[in-house]
Order: sequence, then structure tokens, then C-alpha cells
Amino acid sequence: MRIPFDELKATFEEILKSRGIKEETARISAENFASSSADGVYTHGVNRFPKVISYLERGLINGNGEPERVFSMGAVERWDGHMGLGNVNAKKAMDRACGLASLHGIAMVALKNTSHWMRGGAYGWQAAERGFIGLCWTNSMPNMPPWGGTDPRLGNNPLVIAVPSPDGNHAVIDMAMSQFSYGKIELARLKGETLPVPGGWNKGGALTCDPKEIEESRLVLPMGYWKGSGLSVLLDIAAAVLSGGRTVKEIGEAFGEDAGVSQIFIAMKPEPEALMAVTQVLEDVKASAPREGGSVFYPGEIEKNTRKENMERGIPVLDTVWETIQALKKGGSHG
Amino acid sequence: MRIPFDELKATFEEILKSRGIKEETARISAENFASSSADGVYTHGVNRFPKVISYLERGLINGNGEPERVFSMGAVERWDGHMGLGNVNAKKAMDRACGLASLHGIAMVALKNTSHWMRGGAYGWQAAERGFIGLCWTNSMPNMPPWGGTDPRLGNNPLVIAVPSPDGNHAVIDMAMSQFSYGKIELARLKGETLPVPGGWNKGGALTCDPKEIEESRLVLPMGYWKGSGLSVLLDIAAAVLSGGRTVKEIGEAFGEDAGVSQIFIAMKPEPEALMAVTQVLEDVKASAPREGGSVFYPGEIEKNTRKENMERGIPVLDTVWETIQALKKGGSHG
Repeated sequence: MRIPFDELKATFEEILKSRGIKEETARISAENFASSSADGVYTHGVNRFPKVISYLERGLINGNGEPERVFSMGAVERWDGHMGLGNVNAKKAMDRACGLASLHGIAMVALKNTSHWMRGGAYGWQAAERGFIGLCWTNSMPNMPPWGGTDPRLGNNPLVIAVPSPDGNHAVIDMAMSQFSYGKIELARLKGETLPVPGGWNKGGALTCDPKEIEESRLVLPMGYWKGSGLSVLLDIAAAVLSGGRTVKEIGEAFGEDAGVSQIFIAMKPEPEALMAVTQVLEDVKASAPREGGSVFYPGEIEKNTRKENMERGIPVLDTVWETIQALKKGGSHG
Repeated sequence: MRIPFDELKATFEEILKSRGIKEETARISAENFASSSADGVYTHGVNRFPKVISYLERGLINGNGEPERVFSMGAVERWDGHMGLGNVNAKKAMDRACGLASLHGIAMVALKNTSHWMRGGAYGWQAAERGFIGLCWTNSMPNMPPWGGTDPRLGNNPLVIAVPSPDGNHAVIDMAMSQFSYGKIELARLKGETLPVPGGWNKGGALTCDPKEIEESRLVLPMGYWKGSGLSVLLDIAAAVLSGGRTVKEIGEAFGEDAGVSQIFIAMKPEPEALMAVTQVLEDVKASAPREGGSVFYPGEIEKNTRKENMERGIPVLDTVWETIQALKKGGSHG
């Protein structure tokens, strides 16, 4: 079925408020869940919502944890997220980073002790909509082996970069350090497909495109092999050091789930006239002769196209997911 | 043969000065070439030096081009590199970014119109040695197809991140957006080896591990497939927009070589006590049970080990390369 954006958002908001979340917090969080769904990132939008309610019930998220500034120096602030809703804390952090960047040219808000931010790309789009270049990343629980290793010690630590375009066609990437998410791997298995490129190791230690084998070994492949492995380590260290928060290892030890993570939000203020370069580059990328039967998309283009369609026709929601959410509305538990 | 660091550096310095380069500029540049060689990055150290001399002769590098600050606002400066030596401009830019970051917590120097910075990792190590977190990247000439495309429109746009460790074991990554450099691909062919993972497309449009096929097609693979492709686009746009300099497309049109590029240098000031996390994470990564016959290295470890060996035993230089360099000393052309 397809649910109109406003109905989806109102539903999320109602459920969050029924769990004792303050009105403004519920509104910001609901807006994020609905927008991510509108952009086609259902895994971190409507499909993820019931899990967040379960985290609230289990106390892994503090529904009324408010972000608090604990340090300020020049263009840098450090905040304690007090385990509050991750998508609300992250939005406020990127908002503040943009505000500081309009004074200093570049600014950073480092956030510790926060919850999973859901779709990282949201904070890139947010910065771009305000006319800023956004750069942000998060760490996570350990879920990926380092290159050369055989046990999950790295986070998938998504990295987001966004550059605003004068015509609204912003360039945005949102990339986890694993080649595929477990959500994508599961989807391939359910569809009876193999992955287009290797996505992890099998139990025998060989690289494989078979989603079932990766789900068995729980060893996903870093994107770019040794490159994503190294980048994951650096993003983790930088996030923990700059925020004073937990490392991937400490998240694993404290929670064993994506809770109490560390995040960095950097905003940079471009000169408006320099932004002409964005359109020029994106048009050049699009002009590349495509492989047979394929297309070339610029980073952010698919989300933009999906958003347009979903805002017009409503957001596709799986029947079972909608039933679960309706049950939450009636005060039921998440499952 | 192995050449002692001081002799290598003095040789570079002498040759640069004989080409009319100022004393201080020659010293900084020579130090960079020798240090990159000491760290084992010969491709961007001693092996690359003759090419830089040829660029000076051809006027693609302006030996006395000095970086000039053209804009300043808060924690941000924009510089014009005036086509000067890339490794000198880049060192000065990262130095200034660290200086500004000690005042503002975070700072950026955006550099346009500069030359190839040689080994990007050098500026990460530089920031880390000064106790700063360094984040820098450059764009390049078009040399890689976008994901889904068939002609080279993206740069390999290396990205560098460094975090200082209190014990000097800094964590540093220096990664191009291509899975392999053409240098690595050539080396595999010369050794008669195949690449360990796909490194590009063959002329038939299939992914291949055969170095010869990739050299024929000139189509290298973005690291992480679509991920490195997207990241390359964003790094290019951000570098050009923030510096007011050339995009990858414009570099291709203006020079068709790595000249007149755009670069970003960001420095962040960590709290000294927070740096304990660095050692903890690196030790945890190293503790991963290795694959059979393999080892797990933290990012920066191999360079550190190589540096130690090369400073003690001298830097390995190929006979033919050393002959070429000796000829340059006598005032000869690059060959």
C-alpha cells in the first residue's frame, strides 16, 4: 500500500507522544522517519520505526534525553546526547554546526552518548538545504572484520558528504563502510538473488556473493577491501576522540547494539557563486556513456527521484509493517 | 641499492636549486620526497622526482610560484597556489590549518591552482606529529569512469585522515578512490601477477584482475564499486567549491594532466586526554585473529615499520632511477 507523507508522519508522531516523548521531539523524530521513507530509504525509515519503539521500551534510548553542550571553543562544540532519540540529536547537532559555520566559515559539533541516527544522509540533505556543505559520520557496534582479520571488530561507521546545488539538485553520499548492509544481504536472499559483487566471507574463509553464506558467517566485507577497513578505523577513532565518547569496541562492550554511539557533524560555508561547479560536475558525470542497459546517476539523484514520486503517490509501506505500526498506535508493544 | 636519507634529501635539494628554486622551497620539497621514500611510498617519492623536474621544465609547475592567501574568514582561508610545487604548497597549507585550528578548534585552508601534492599521507602525518587530527583531499585529472559509465570522468581524488597517538603510533589512511593505482597495476604486470581483487574493466566491459587488460582499456575500478565512484564526485565538488578552483573536468580540459588542482586541508584540535582512545582502538584491531598465513595491520603501521628500517639501512632505490637522478644533478633533462 501507499501511505501519504502527512499520514505517515502523523502516525509516527502520535505513537512517539503516546510513549511520553515531548511534542517537539516527537515532531522532529517523526519528520525524519517519514522523510527517509519518502526518499526511498525504508530500512532506516518506516521499517526501522518499530525497532526504535522497542529500544525506548528497553531503555536503550532515553525518550526524554536532551542533547546538552558540555564544551565550547571557537568553532567547536561538544555535546552529550544523554542517550536521546538519535535522529533528533543528530538534526540538532547539524543545525548547530551550520549556525556556527555561518560565523566561522567551518564548524564542528561532536556528539557523544547518542542513539543510532537512522539515515545518515538526512543530515547531509539538511545541511545542503540550508546552503552548507555537510560532512558527518557516526560509529556503531562492532559488525565487520578488519582486513586480514576474522572477527567483527570494526563498525560500519557511515560517512555522509553533501554539497548544495543552486538548482536544488544537491550532491549527497551516504555510505557505510561495509560493501552491503545486512538489510541488503537479507533482501537478496529473500529474492533468491546473489549479490552483484562479493559482500563477505563464507565460513570457509572465501569471499562470496551468496547472501546466505554471509548471514551464516556474519562476516561482511569492508567496501574497497582494505580501504574501507582502514577508513572505518579512522572514522571510529576520530569520532570517539573528538566527542570524548565511546569507541566501537566500547559500544560493543557496553551494549552489544547500536546504542550510546559517537558522531561528528562538520558544516562549511561555500561562496554562493562557487556553487556553479556543482551543476557542471553532476552534468559531466551524467554525460558518461552508460554500460549496456545501464544508467549513470549522480550521488543523490535516485533519492531525489524517489522523493518526487513518493510525495505525489504516497510512500510504499509493506502490509505487515503497517499492521505492526498500527498496533503500536493502540499502545501495543513492538512485537 | 640503498641510499641514506640525508644523501637522498641533499640530492633532491641540489637538483631543485639548480633549476632556480629558492633555497627554502627546495628544502621543503626535498624533505617531502625523501620522507615519502623513507616511508616506503617510492611511487610518490624518489620514483616520481624526475617527473616533477620534467613538469618544471614544461612549465606545468611554476618553481617559484608561492602560495598566496586570497580570502580569510574566521577559521577558513582560501589560498591560490600559483601553480607552485605541490608538496611545498600542501605542507604550508596544512601547517596553516593547524595554526588556525589551535585558535578555533577546527580550521580549513582551501588551496586552488596548485600542483600534485605527491604523497597525500605526508600531510596527515604532519598534522598528527603536531598533535592535530588532519583531514585532507585533492582532486586530479579525469582517470576513472563513474559507476555505470564507460569513460574516465572522475578523478582518483585521494583522501587522507590522520589521528595522533600519544605514543607516536599515529593512525593514518591515505586512499585514492580507485581500487588500485596505475603504478600498482603496472607492478603486477611486470611481476607476472594478477591483482588480488578486480581492479578495472577489460575492453569487453567485464571486471578483471588482469593488469594488462586494465592497462589496455584504461578503465580502473572505483574502490567499493559505486561507493568510491560517489565519494570521488563529492570530494571533487567540495574541493572545487571551497577553494574556488578547478574541477576534475576543468583540470582535464586545461591540462590533461595532474596540474592546477584543488585541495582541502582541515585540522581539528583534540583534547590530549581523549587520545588514549587511539591506542585502545589500534590494539583492538591488531588483536583480531588473522586469516591463515596473514596479519592484521592498523592504518599507518606498515609505513611506520618501513620508515624505521629505511632510516637505519638506507632507502632502497632502483639502479635505473638513481642513474636518472644523478643525470639530473649534472643539469641533464629528465630523460
